[in-house]
Amino acid sequence: MASIESVRRSLVLRRRPDGEPRGEDFALVEDPIPVPGAGEVLTRTILLSIDPYMRGRISGRASYSPPVAIGGVMTGETVGEVLASGDAGFVPGDIVVGSRGWQTHSLSPAAVLAKVDQHAAPLGAWLGVLGMPGTTAYSGMKDIGRPKAGETAVISAASGAVGSVAGQLAKRAGCRVVGIAGGPDKCLWVQEALGFDDCVDHRSGDLESALRQACPNGIDVYFENVGGFMQEVVFGLLNAHARVVMCGMIAQYNAAEFPSGPNLGFVVGKRVRIEGLIVADKPERFAEWRALAAPWLRDGSLLHRQTIIDGLENAPEALRQVLRGGNFGKMLVRVG
Amino acid sequence: MASIESVRRSLVLRRRPDGEPRGEDFALVEDPIPVPGAGEVLTRTILLSIDPYMRGRISGRASYSPPVAIGGVMTGETVGEVLASGDAGFVPGDIVVGSRGWQTHSLSPAAVLAKVDQHAAPLGAWLGVLGMPGTTAYSGMKDIGRPKAGETAVISAASGAVGSVAGQLAKRAGCRVVGIAGGPDKCLWVQEALGFDDCVDHRSGDLESALRQACPNGIDVYFENVGGFMQEVVFGLLNAHARVVMCGMIAQYNAAEFPSGPNLGFVVGKRVRIEGLIVADKPERFAEWRALAAPWLRDGSLLHRQTIIDGLENAPEALRQVLRGGNFGKMLVRVG
Repeated sequence: MASIESVRRSLVLRRRPDGEPRGEDFALVEDPIPVPGAGEVLTRTILLSIDPYMRGRISGRASYSPPVAIGGVMTGETVGEVLASGDAGFVPGDIVVGSRGWQTHSLSPAAVLAKVDQHAAPLGAWLGVLGMPGTTAYSGMKDIGRPKAGETAVISAASGAVGSVAGQLAKRAGCRVVGIAGGPDKCLWVQEALGFDDCVDHRSGDLESALRQACPNGIDVYFENVGGFMQEVVFGLLNAHARVVMCGMIAQYNAAEFPSGPNLGFVVGKRVRIEGLIVADKPERFAEWRALAAPWLRDGSLLHRQTIIDGLENAPEALRQVLRGGNFGKMLVRVG
Repeated sequence: MASIESVRRSLVLRRRPDGEPRGEDFALVEDPIPVPGAGEVLTRTILLSIDPYMRGRISGRASYSPPVAIGGVMTGETVGEVLASGDAGFVPGDIVVGSRGWQTHSLSPAAVLAKVDQHAAPLGAWLGVLGMPGTTAYSGMKDIGRPKAGETAVISAASGAVGSVAGQLAKRAGCRVVGIAGGPDKCLWVQEALGFDDCVDHRSGDLESALRQACPNGIDVYFENVGGFMQEVVFGLLNAHARVVMCGMIAQYNAAEFPSGPNLGFVVGKRVRIEGLIVADKPERFAEWRALAAPWLRDGSLLHRQTIIDGLENAPEALRQVLRGGNFGKMLVRVG
């Protein structure tokens, strides 16, 4: 189903956000839809993935990846459909994933796209549970968290694209799994649908006593997506030889200055391991995870959930929502 | 050379120190020198090891080991001489190491003592470079730090019993090694005698700019013995994939309340590993290290240094000095 549009729309970074990202931080630019040359593929974007890490790419801080340049197209993972191809590996109608950014159409070297089987999973799954967030959870648990039967695992942002997979993996490993999420709806889903043993609502009451009650044997694995006060509370309940998967600290992504952290004296006496994770460091985990997870998705033993917002122009608002927990599960923007 | 005394003197804990430990926190008690029964060994203590971890054993805080009870003999590693033996494995005159505490004589089950070759190394070495502190440095580097040629390793408390070995191991691994020590004498020894590439005096000037200058390629391995402000400064200079060996945080051992720590956001983006170490967790490292280190000690390629204070009654002051950096190298008390 080829597009009949002739104009490509792209969201470029106008300025580095001060605090929460807003629509004014981006500009919508139009140019003609390009024509693929030899080895190139033209795609129309169907879905954009919206992820917390993106806040780092539009800040001026040094990070593990170079930031998006002012005037550059905003970066991000996408699912698209091939419209025209100058490469023998792709034909119009193919569904592909790539990191093609916030635009309606993309001209790509064939090597940066990967074909997916559109009948194997819902399209959004390639950006969520089977994509970067799911692989992040898998790598975090396999390479750092290493949950063992009988241990207690705590997952922050437990209803999110990463946390929901991390917790389901800890359940499969035989752990008592306790989620932390914002609000009763998310906690209900985490506990009832995903099957976590408990879920603590960090927006309600005393987090420390609730977590202490939910983890009577302490905490052996902590999958950290949030940071801030939550980190301090969880660190206080870690057991000897606990592992902390440092995946993200979303609580401070909009902050101009970072607050101080927990005193690390306990790390010595408890022989805790705290380790950071960037999923791209172990690219082999992507295929490993897809091979593991696709059957679980089909047989219904691995659940996921998504929030979809319509319209490329709403991507900045979607990112703002992700950073304040306004999404429920994987956040996606439907472009076309 | 058997003792002709008939009275045993022991230092017992009178109360838990408030801040720095003082003589009044301990009481000197006397009782008759005991007589060994079957399977028991009587020793006279020659040297006591004084180590920073001891502050934790006399505080009321929960830790990895139970605290010394009020009225109990203060714990600690010792070198002693066998005076009488009810066990076939020991004869009078044998030199033994064990954890026999702050007393002039000790009655021990044979199983808790180990004979050492008194001609293989100076007696103090069995409590320092070849003993618990040296093994701690070895295990920290082998199991967590894993220094590689071309990397930069920073060692805090670099002239101490642990730090001096940790840094020499990093040099052997081919690292650029930068020490941090208190005062020009210690820094001179660390650089000139131990052969570290540089040593920063944390008592002089701007630690951050001095360390930045000493580590032009950033920091890949940090051996943490100190904590506090030093930790924050070093963490700010860590490279991607850096390893932090959390061996101790002596800066806060006398504190009633722990200060907050560094923000851990960098751990994610830089994929840093921060891991705690208690040497007793891997008992096999002790023999491994002795086998490795004894020849280096003999051929002069592994250096060590000690501060010796005379008299059992001065052990509390020796501990106070260790906690404020008043020692230079391994702190020992000569008992008899």
